[in-house]
Amino acid sequence: MRNLDGRLEMCSINTATLGHKGPIGDTIDRVARFGFGGICPWRRDLEGQDVAAVARRIRHAGLKVSGYCRSTYIPAATKAGFLANFADNRHAIDQAAALGAACFVLVVGSLPAGSKDLGDARIQVAEGVGLMLEHARATGMRLALEPLHPMYANDRSCLNTLAQALDLADALESTPQGAPTLGVAVDVYHVWWDPDLSANIKRAGAARRIFGFHVCDWLVPTRDLLTDRGMMGDGVIDIPLIRGAVEASGYAGQIEVEIFSDRDWWTRPPDETLSVCAERLQTVC
Amino acid sequence: MRNLDGRLEMCSINTATLGHKGPIGDTIDRVARFGFGGICPWRRDLEGQDVAAVARRIRHAGLKVSGYCRSTYIPAATKAGFLANFADNRHAIDQAAALGAACFVLVVGSLPAGSKDLGDARIQVAEGVGLMLEHARATGMRLALEPLHPMYANDRSCLNTLAQALDLADALESTPQGAPTLGVAVDVYHVWWDPDLSANIKRAGAARRIFGFHVCDWLVPTRDLLTDRGMMGDGVIDIPLIRGAVEASGYAGQIEVEIFSDRDWWTRPPDETLSVCAERLQTVC
Repeated sequence: MRNLDGRLEMCSINTATLGHKGPIGDTIDRVARFGFGGICPWRRDLEGQDVAAVARRIRHAGLKVSGYCRSTYIPAATKAGFLANFADNRHAIDQAAALGAACFVLVVGSLPAGSKDLGDARIQVAEGVGLMLEHARATGMRLALEPLHPMYANDRSCLNTLAQALDLADALESTPQGAPTLGVAVDVYHVWWDPDLSANIKRAGAARRIFGFHVCDWLVPTRDLLTDRGMMGDGVIDIPLIRGAVEASGYAGQIEVEIFSDRDWWTRPPDETLSVCAERLQTVC
Repeated sequence: MRNLDGRLEMCSINTATLGHKGPIGDTIDRVARFGFGGICPWRRDLEGQDVAAVARRIRHAGLKVSGYCRSTYIPAATKAGFLANFADNRHAIDQAAALGAACFVLVVGSLPAGSKDLGDARIQVAEGVGLMLEHARATGMRLALEPLHPMYANDRSCLNTLAQALDLADALESTPQGAPTLGVAVDVYHVWWDPDLSANIKRAGAARRIFGFHVCDWLVPTRDLLTDRGMMGDGVIDIPLIRGAVEASGYAGQIEVEIFSDRDWWTRPPDETLSVCAERLQTVC
């Protein structure tokens, strides 16, 4: 496992960690000033912005783009809705390419309003990712399926385990020409509980499908399903165990911090949050 | 799939659904009065009670005991703690036998305080269930491993999928003599998201390992990780799909309603909750 001590250039900050506050330009400069090597912006950060100018600013700050967050949910109640979601995602893939992102992160969505048909949602996801994959190949942008914790199975994602994401990747891209275009983002928050985690990290690495690795922590108690994620070291996830497995499987990309925390970290000054991220990355990850 | 319309004798009420309010004797009579065929008491309901007398009262009310809830968490920080947990569970198995329960429900626990070692917790669970199994065989009581939703992986259960529970059952009781003593309780709340659910229900049924089937619903939004479960029909779980699979696999036991709901159902008069349970069991399950 790589030693992160004094090596923040191997680490990246997802802008969600700072609560998307302030203009993206300021956030870029701030992240660079702390010595991090990368940033993962969200589409909302780029609204009303010139994407090429943002990309230049990131490059000039010396940062890589560890990923671009995230897809519009794929399933819809109607075919027109499904196609509109695809159009959104096609545009976002173009933005990811303009940013030079390592991958476009797919949070795939799940049940359309009123539906209980998880099987159908999963079929729509497979079809939608298949469409996106064609455009991603044409654009040279990699797609990272992010399996989400099963507690998000109703709305945010019907992809809920690493095995399921890899099965989908294999189904859509069984014999990649050269390096795969379809892979996964492994976020410790979503996968730490999985009894098959170790085996599937190996499988993902062997297929060269790990495009991103995200850290935060699982707080005890967790008071909200979405926005009560913890700073690394404040919860119960054995992060070094998972990072060790991911890196042993061949992952050489950045370690990205992504924390949703409306009760704690989002209420603090961004510099304080970044300072603690830097310290924890070097000591407990 | 069995038709539940007019067949409440195939249904059971877990006492947690009523918030454990009032003496168990009153709850028994109430559940019987509504025409349900079974009850699943918790150990807390029997504190200070003569278990044999409670068992008689349940029998005289014409109710079966669909299960007895639930095990003391198995993992501990020390060997002495582990053995104390086993002693508790040994006693609870005796109570389950005295009640004539269809099974003793195992919620196995997870990380002892201060631990991040999920692997060790799982090893302790395997060892602890192995010990309980010997006593259960001697007592003639079946043990139902209940895989819990992954959002409980830190404290309530490190058994988080049906496949994982079945793997453990196979490991501890690979060639059951006659009917198995170790099986599973399938609760729709805990398993509905699982992409491998259908395959593992078939596997469980083929091994005659389904000892219990629990229903409630997944609310959107879910405002609390533990006590915001929904009444059947109020959430997004396709309950008939899962019940159909469970019954097609050979399950012929009772359908048990278990709802943790401190904001809604626990605040209502018990008769109202039971009335709605009865209606929903016959219409949406």
